[in-house]
Amino acid sequence: MPEEKHADLQPGLLTEYLTDDTGFFVRSTREFERFQSPFQAVEVHDTAAFGTLFRLDGHFMTSEKDEFYYHENLVHVAAIAHPAPTTALIIGGGDGGSAEELLKYSTIRSVTLVEIDLAVVDIARKYLGKVHRGALSDPRLAIRVEDGLAFVRASTETYDLIVLDLTDPGGPSAPLYDADFYRACAARLNPSGAMSLHLASPVSHPERIRAGMAELRAAFAIVVPYLVPIPLYGGLWMMACVSATLNPSYLTPLEADRRISQRGIRDLQYYNGDVHRATMALPNFIRELVQIVA
Amino acid sequence: MPEEKHADLQPGLLTEYLTDDTGFFVRSTREFERFQSPFQAVEVHDTAAFGTLFRLDGHFMTSEKDEFYYHENLVHVAAIAHPAPTTALIIGGGDGGSAEELLKYSTIRSVTLVEIDLAVVDIARKYLGKVHRGALSDPRLAIRVEDGLAFVRASTETYDLIVLDLTDPGGPSAPLYDADFYRACAARLNPSGAMSLHLASPVSHPERIRAGMAELRAAFAIVVPYLVPIPLYGGLWMMACVSATLNPSYLTPLEADRRISQRGIRDLQYYNGDVHRATMALPNFIRELVQIVA
Repeated sequence: MPEEKHADLQPGLLTEYLTDDTGFFVRSTREFERFQSPFQAVEVHDTAAFGTLFRLDGHFMTSEKDEFYYHENLVHVAAIAHPAPTTALIIGGGDGGSAEELLKYSTIRSVTLVEIDLAVVDIARKYLGKVHRGALSDPRLAIRVEDGLAFVRASTETYDLIVLDLTDPGGPSAPLYDADFYRACAARLNPSGAMSLHLASPVSHPERIRAGMAELRAAFAIVVPYLVPIPLYGGLWMMACVSATLNPSYLTPLEADRRISQRGIRDLQYYNGDVHRATMALPNFIRELVQIVA
Repeated sequence: MPEEKHADLQPGLLTEYLTDDTGFFVRSTREFERFQSPFQAVEVHDTAAFGTLFRLDGHFMTSEKDEFYYHENLVHVAAIAHPAPTTALIIGGGDGGSAEELLKYSTIRSVTLVEIDLAVVDIARKYLGKVHRGALSDPRLAIRVEDGLAFVRASTETYDLIVLDLTDPGGPSAPLYDADFYRACAARLNPSGAMSLHLASPVSHPERIRAGMAELRAAFAIVVPYLVPIPLYGGLWMMACVSATLNPSYLTPLEADRRISQRGIRDLQYYNGDVHRATMALPNFIRELVQIVA
């Protein structure tokens, strides 16, 4: 699955190609940073539409103004479905956005964040305060700057929740999109635990969804795909909640809302009980793509 | 609400600006048509991503490959919620896509389509067969080439369903986005009738949503907003189902699926019972935007 490599359409017009023939753009009003880390090309820009915007290898990662679409939905579908999450592991996610969502839970005692690239954490501390909102300094968070694949293989710990908050499969994350890695993650989950991750756009890259679902199903008994609109990623995106035992679709909107309140979760701009259920309702062409017969 | 006027970024790179600083593009592989009708600039292109693609005044209208996101959701949320629709009025919609969805109902006896611009109907007959699928020649369809505003004001007919399938408020459709016109439409609905329409993107143009909801609420007792991802419109789009008596949110997924089957509706690529309910689940920031307290 090679990534499209394309230059910006004009200087300052940050451009993301969805396919060779389609894409979208965001105007940069100021470039804060542009450098090469040991792993990837790092950029930080100011923009009117998205506020501070962060790119890796020329791909949009996150922004101040729209990070909640991605981080809230990546974390809460699984975390609210879990009966009482106390420990969590994040692979990737050096911007701190997923950590912030997990640390909203009064039940969460510890979160381990494994980010391969220290530059991402440094950039987040300096520029992305509105993404992590102090989570990177929370005493319940342990940051480990190392390879997520090696960490998961060597670990003997188990967790209630695992969040794969990775770049797309083209860059350093490529080996973290297959069944072997997913099985290693499954071994690090407690019996009622669940993992969540993002896959791809079912509109621009249905072949990535098909492949990703097959790899996940080789490692997990329960694979529940769900859909989230993410402006900075160019539209509809597929995520999945996977587990040996936990199925988030069993939770009613009412019960999801009750848990949001009981667990002390605040400042949700997107996620609520209605959304929890609705996000798993799939259009017919996506049911067919993921081979779910309703 | 002035429309953004911007040129394509490069020749052949069809460009839609969402705001002054953001937008998206689709590469044209061939230009089939480009001319000025008495009402608007008309273009038809071939594209790899969307198949045949239709623009008016430089704005994407519809395409072969993604028309179902828009037309199915614009029509079926209201039409399935209606107990037994037999007559329908479409204002705009000269491409025939909405007519095709309405004519799928075995209960529908007549559809009146009022399109101001004959060029749109001609272009649809010539290039957009995969959008209207023969609906423009269905004996149950009456096409009237006239001003929708004048038609609704002068009409004494009433309908079970009205579909406003209009261009955005910048062009010739501008007067069709206010409470006076909505009240005239309300007077043309049967007692259990409903009207559906699209509003704007709540991400790029929240101010249009706020204004549109206020105009609708001045004319209809029940205003139910819902969300649809539309690739050709650049992401998440808001539609609404409005009525004096009919609330589509009361329908369960099971009952919606039962009606789809009973009414003989086929070839749905997007809409199903789960989607019917899910589309009305609003993220917190959109609840706030439309002033719905859950």
